[in-house]
Amino acid sequence: MNSKLKIIPLGGLEQIGMNITAFEYEDSIIVVDCGLAFPEDDMLGIDLVIPDVTYLKENADKVKGFMITHGHEDHIGALPYVLKELPVPIYATKLTMGVIERKLAEHGLDKNTKRKVVKFGQHINLGQLRVEFIKTNHSIADAAALAIYSPAGIVVHTGDFKVDYTPVFGDAIDLQRFAELGKKGVLALMCDSTNAERPGFTPSERTVGVTFDNIFSEHQKTRLIIATFASNVDRVQQIIDSAYKYGRKVVVEGRSMVNIIDTAMNLGYISIPDNTLIDIEQIKNYPDEKTVIITTGSQGESMAALSRMASGMHRKIHIGPLDTVIFSSNPIPGNEKAVSKVINELYAKGADVIFQDAHVSGHACQEEIKLIYSLVQPKYAIPVHGEYRHLQAQANLLKQLGIDKDDIFILRSGEVLELDDESADVTGKVPVGSIFVDGLGVGDVGNIVLRDRQRLAEDGIVIVVVALDCDNNYIVSGPDIVSRGFVYVREADELLDEAQVLVTEILEDCIHRNISDWGRMKNIVRDDLSEYLWKKTKRRPMILPIIMEV
Amino acid sequence: MNSKLKIIPLGGLEQIGMNITAFEYEDSIIVVDCGLAFPEDDMLGIDLVIPDVTYLKENADKVKGFMITHGHEDHIGALPYVLKELPVPIYATKLTMGVIERKLAEHGLDKNTKRKVVKFGQHINLGQLRVEFIKTNHSIADAAALAIYSPAGIVVHTGDFKVDYTPVFGDAIDLQRFAELGKKGVLALMCDSTNAERPGFTPSERTVGVTFDNIFSEHQKTRLIIATFASNVDRVQQIIDSAYKYGRKVVVEGRSMVNIIDTAMNLGYISIPDNTLIDIEQIKNYPDEKTVIITTGSQGESMAALSRMASGMHRKIHIGPLDTVIFSSNPIPGNEKAVSKVINELYAKGADVIFQDAHVSGHACQEEIKLIYSLVQPKYAIPVHGEYRHLQAQANLLKQLGIDKDDIFILRSGEVLELDDESADVTGKVPVGSIFVDGLGVGDVGNIVLRDRQRLAEDGIVIVVVALDCDNNYIVSGPDIVSRGFVYVREADELLDEAQVLVTEILEDCIHRNISDWGRMKNIVRDDLSEYLWKKTKRRPMILPIIMEV
Repeated sequence: MNSKLKIIPLGGLEQIGMNITAFEYEDSIIVVDCGLAFPEDDMLGIDLVIPDVTYLKENADKVKGFMITHGHEDHIGALPYVLKELPVPIYATKLTMGVIERKLAEHGLDKNTKRKVVKFGQHINLGQLRVEFIKTNHSIADAAALAIYSPAGIVVHTGDFKVDYTPVFGDAIDLQRFAELGKKGVLALMCDSTNAERPGFTPSERTVGVTFDNIFSEHQKTRLIIATFASNVDRVQQIIDSAYKYGRKVVVEGRSMVNIIDTAMNLGYISIPDNTLIDIEQIKNYPDEKTVIITTGSQGESMAALSRMASGMHRKIHIGPLDTVIFSSNPIPGNEKAVSKVINELYAKGADVIFQDAHVSGHACQEEIKLIYSLVQPKYAIPVHGEYRHLQAQANLLKQLGIDKDDIFILRSGEVLELDDESADVTGKVPVGSIFVDGLGVGDVGNIVLRDRQRLAEDGIVIVVVALDCDNNYIVSGPDIVSRGFVYVREADELLDEAQVLVTEILEDCIHRNISDWGRMKNIVRDDLSEYLWKKTKRRPMILPIIMEV
Repeated sequence: MNSKLKIIPLGGLEQIGMNITAFEYEDSIIVVDCGLAFPEDDMLGIDLVIPDVTYLKENADKVKGFMITHGHEDHIGALPYVLKELPVPIYATKLTMGVIERKLAEHGLDKNTKRKVVKFGQHINLGQLRVEFIKTNHSIADAAALAIYSPAGIVVHTGDFKVDYTPVFGDAIDLQRFAELGKKGVLALMCDSTNAERPGFTPSERTVGVTFDNIFSEHQKTRLIIATFASNVDRVQQIIDSAYKYGRKVVVEGRSMVNIIDTAMNLGYISIPDNTLIDIEQIKNYPDEKTVIITTGSQGESMAALSRMASGMHRKIHIGPLDTVIFSSNPIPGNEKAVSKVINELYAKGADVIFQDAHVSGHACQEEIKLIYSLVQPKYAIPVHGEYRHLQAQANLLKQLGIDKDDIFILRSGEVLELDDESADVTGKVPVGSIFVDGLGVGDVGNIVLRDRQRLAEDGIVIVVVALDCDNNYIVSGPDIVSRGFVYVREADELLDEAQVLVTEILEDCIHRNISDWGRMKNIVRDDLSEYLWKKTKRRPMILPIIMEV
């Protein structure tokens, strides 16, 4: 009897953004993508979140490599961290690899990481598994779907994708290959659900080019500032095309934007006419209406170039009534207020702002999802990429297509789906989790530290310091009470004075009762002072008693 | 020569939500609305934000009263705080006053606050000013526009409004009166801008009733749970009407929902057929498909009833596959992620979720704004209510209507607009600001405390305690280093041990150099330790040196 194929999401549903999925057949494991997540609002002070890959480390001898579908952070961002513990080869298409290489270089990993650039249509043999890269379209060039061949059957993984019949660069998605695989017989399809709530088709990236031409034509008297996603090379290409057509010089601003355009130019994914790109220092040599600035900050990120321009903190670009600012983007959920803040600031400086119709999504809508399913006709459906609501929306679509609900699997992080032509079942769960990156620390901030930060953020801290003579059990100095983030000190003088009297009484009472266990003494101080402050202020600052032995 | 009328927003643009505007003519001041704002993301630990009314307090003898347009928090919420310092009468329509009274009672202010319930069409004389209440429509019943008569001319203030030709309760907006005032000659129109970016008309509240009927008709086999804004009495009425029609019992859940329905019933703004409303305790006596639960939590508020149901924390309602949950609401900007979280949790529990088409806005879209301007035809336009982008969108609309841009005023908080038939100019600025309410404290948390909380939230705190003999200048005990929210302690042992050695050296060096100024000594510890920790961790915790004198 043949073994079954195991599919194990190591990030995913409970860890949106951390796209990383293991495919295991007997002694062969391949890993699709290795993404990071940006911190949620309650992850105070955290810079990045990466997946816990304990399962892969425990099976390190089986792991053949990472197959990367495209160069977005939520698919490649955790690579530098994971590779340090699991140094296996990376397989990706050319631009994707270019983006990865820059990232590896920043972490000093570029020398020792095996990398193989893969062409569309190429097959990679990895133990008992084989992987084929298939051309798709997305908001970054060179995106791939994967066909994963195992003795138990073929699994097709779309990666992030859309159907673009008229892409700006390269070929349209290879629908014929999806159909061919479907004819051959596909065990399971793992399909992007991001836009599964949206009816219809996502328009071609080229439609944005038409919008740009119109905007350039209608705003010939102002400077243009266009904010978009750094990694959308085709978008940048179209802005440059319009700029060239309308005789404007182009400035690229924002570090991530400069980096990606550099990579894309080197690899031939973008072509810029001579004398079009100028340095930001040169912009003053041209009239406003002859320049266009392409910038980062379309999500209202506080440190990005556009936000600094809007708030007047940008050293070289000053916004005024002769500016038209175009958001070539939609706010990602959670960023709406930040984007609105930037728009408000731009208007308040007199600029004109265009924040509609200069963007299309990179993800498939309902009709495209139905198309892919109709071509591939898998035995099992495993909706991927998105929140539960999006996976559920895809599942609902599939029911409309006549797919039995027992053949649809919404997998939670760590669940092991074992499948072959006979059956598919969740048979277990491997350890998964989120590791917080804060500054240089990877994993040294956990839930205890976060809970403390939340507490500190909410009501601040009150520190009680006292010096005790431990031999003779009397107060040598203090108690002193210091607070931060609790209450404005001048207002609190009386409150903290009273608290000091209270704590003195508590300590003297402890001494009187011969309580010499300092842990116990601290607990009494903490509880009584906390209750007192709650009664007086309805706040619960963290209370930290420190006893010095003198 | 006659005096001019002064219009002074004391909240507004820089303080969204705090709707409070002073109208001053010689020795008479009236105040329109008195709202509160909910804290922005960076206002850590803050419960509410209320306006600084220093200007009103300084002119307390002139202030004749508060004119309240409708009963939403951003128009009435600061009343209990402001009235304590400025005990003047309140004027409002019946339901609005009912909502205010409940609020005053909670603050023990119901006995001593003068209140006058006003009818639409009624005029109130207040010194040299006169105010007429005009019927409008909004997402809470009994909303009013105001005509403010002064010797310098008439100002019309729409409040929050929409045009609903077929309202659920009471009359449609009194368009004839707007026209009549326009014929008479209006000096300035202050018009709601919230939806000024949206083309077309806002549909009638009644269209939601049709949607409810359809949902009730199509979901006759599941329990229905409908989340909406507590204050939208007409919405609740329509749910009850559908429930009655389809033979379902109604449970109302969530404190604010219960309160407002109670007020609305007492005042005759909602009518519930006998034996329709049941207590939540009784729900178990009815089959699921014969009940509907109307609940708070449509914005994903973490403590609201729906969120507790979704996360399995609600003691009486357990969500399962036999539930259909309807969001009769749109997420308010900033709440998108919280709402999505609730939707995901509901789906994950097997419920069906409807989050589209069961809501209409309470604010006027572009065509309605144009209608009001065309009826009133003011000399000056003062867009109000909304962020800068919304006020600007209204201003752009008005330019299309042929209104001269010099006659349009986007006022910032505190700006004094002086106007009469001859001219209108911003002539000065009065003090304005935001006062933070945190627990029982009003104004005792300011920017210093907030900055500390942000710092603590980001990287935590490191406390250095040392006991010094001040006569002989030597270290008696310590330095001890304690951290919270900085790094997980087991990981940090070595780091904090090294830090202790460093601090000991710093202190001994200070003693050696005869530095006896403790402030200076603390600064040296703070700076050197901060640099050390930054180098080691790329984090900047707050560093708090405490020296005990023994």
